[in-house]
Amino acid sequence: MTRVRVNSFSISADGFGAGPDQSLDNPLGARGKELHGWAFGTKTFRTMFGEEGGSTGIDESYAARAMDGLGAWILGRNMFGPIRGDWPDDEWKGWWGDTPPYHCPVFVLTHHARPPIEMNGGTVFHFVTGGADEALALAREAAGARDIRVGGGSATIRQYLTTGAIDEMHLAIAPVVLGRGEALFAGIDLPALGYAVTEHARGENAAHIVLTRQ
Amino acid sequence: MTRVRVNSFSISADGFGAGPDQSLDNPLGARGKELHGWAFGTKTFRTMFGEEGGSTGIDESYAARAMDGLGAWILGRNMFGPIRGDWPDDEWKGWWGDTPPYHCPVFVLTHHARPPIEMNGGTVFHFVTGGADEALALAREAAGARDIRVGGGSATIRQYLTTGAIDEMHLAIAPVVLGRGEALFAGIDLPALGYAVTEHARGENAAHIVLTRQ
Repeated sequence: MTRVRVNSFSISADGFGAGPDQSLDNPLGARGKELHGWAFGTKTFRTMFGEEGGSTGIDESYAARAMDGLGAWILGRNMFGPIRGDWPDDEWKGWWGDTPPYHCPVFVLTHHARPPIEMNGGTVFHFVTGGADEALALAREAAGARDIRVGGGSATIRQYLTTGAIDEMHLAIAPVVLGRGEALFAGIDLPALGYAVTEHARGENAAHIVLTRQ
Repeated sequence: MTRVRVNSFSISADGFGAGPDQSLDNPLGARGKELHGWAFGTKTFRTMFGEEGGSTGIDESYAARAMDGLGAWILGRNMFGPIRGDWPDDEWKGWWGDTPPYHCPVFVLTHHARPPIEMNGGTVFHFVTGGADEALALAREAAGARDIRVGGGSATIRQYLTTGAIDEMHLAIAPVVLGRGEALFAGIDLPALGYAVTEHARGENAAHIVLTRQ
């Protein structure tokens, strides 16, 4: 049965899911890269971007799980790119080059319609203007028996958490404080929404916890 | 030289330094005990409360450091007890019985004056009505060359963080979510205040980070 998952979502020790001031040069916001340091060195991550080697420990096991069994993704628009408002043209096709690491349909939440984009390797970007519920319904249809991953960012995850749509959420807590940015949990009462920590592990470069909706 | 330290302060993965609804039966608030699970099994903690044995790994090393080299403590009133408002009598002498684990002067922040209480083992509780700065000045005088530990709770730590008084802060991030309670970092921009993570370690039952003011 399809599960709706968040995986490998990195937060700082002070609770931010991305740094402030996202831009073309800083897709993850200022200092956002420090959040994801634990992932960059893993075998899964390096393979994804055509590099050899990489770590094979606990961090790697979470990185690998994050890509396993997925049939569709949902991304907030800011995860797709730095452009705000209307699309000026069809130039921007995501941060990931011609062959994005998704290899399945990706539903991008946006207020601005745009035709789908077919990329190399099976990734198709669909732009959904009808809101989070519509994106989830389309993703369910596309995923078949496979899982749906809500990639982020914080605002998108918060939206799906508050409606109870997320079945499982893996967070990597990075040993860094950001001070500003997108607070993942502000105003969200996870236990009241039915979530509890069901797994935790000490990664080489981050602390991992898995929350499951009971 | 005296440093002002926070040690072994436990927070949940969603950023709470204590659970809600503190009471006589729940000194740490509802579910607060889950925050401190990593500490209860350590040799230092067990010794402190007259028990034998205990773990001797990474969690223990942080528990031991937390009690090392201290000449004075500062506690918020809620850490001293569940009573609010005026002291009804002189009965309440803290959560810790006749021999509290401090063994030095402890300055309790309160709006309600009360004579000092001398306990067994060298602990003296002083009640400070002149505010955080006055408590810190008194603690400095009492500590001599030793360190001052700000024990908590969240509100007291936040107060000293925002004035830059804290030199070093060790946090233990527990693999638990609380949803409600006292948010340690809400509205506090640690990097802007000069703090950065200078140490981190994977404990057996919590992730440890040390923040130092640069």
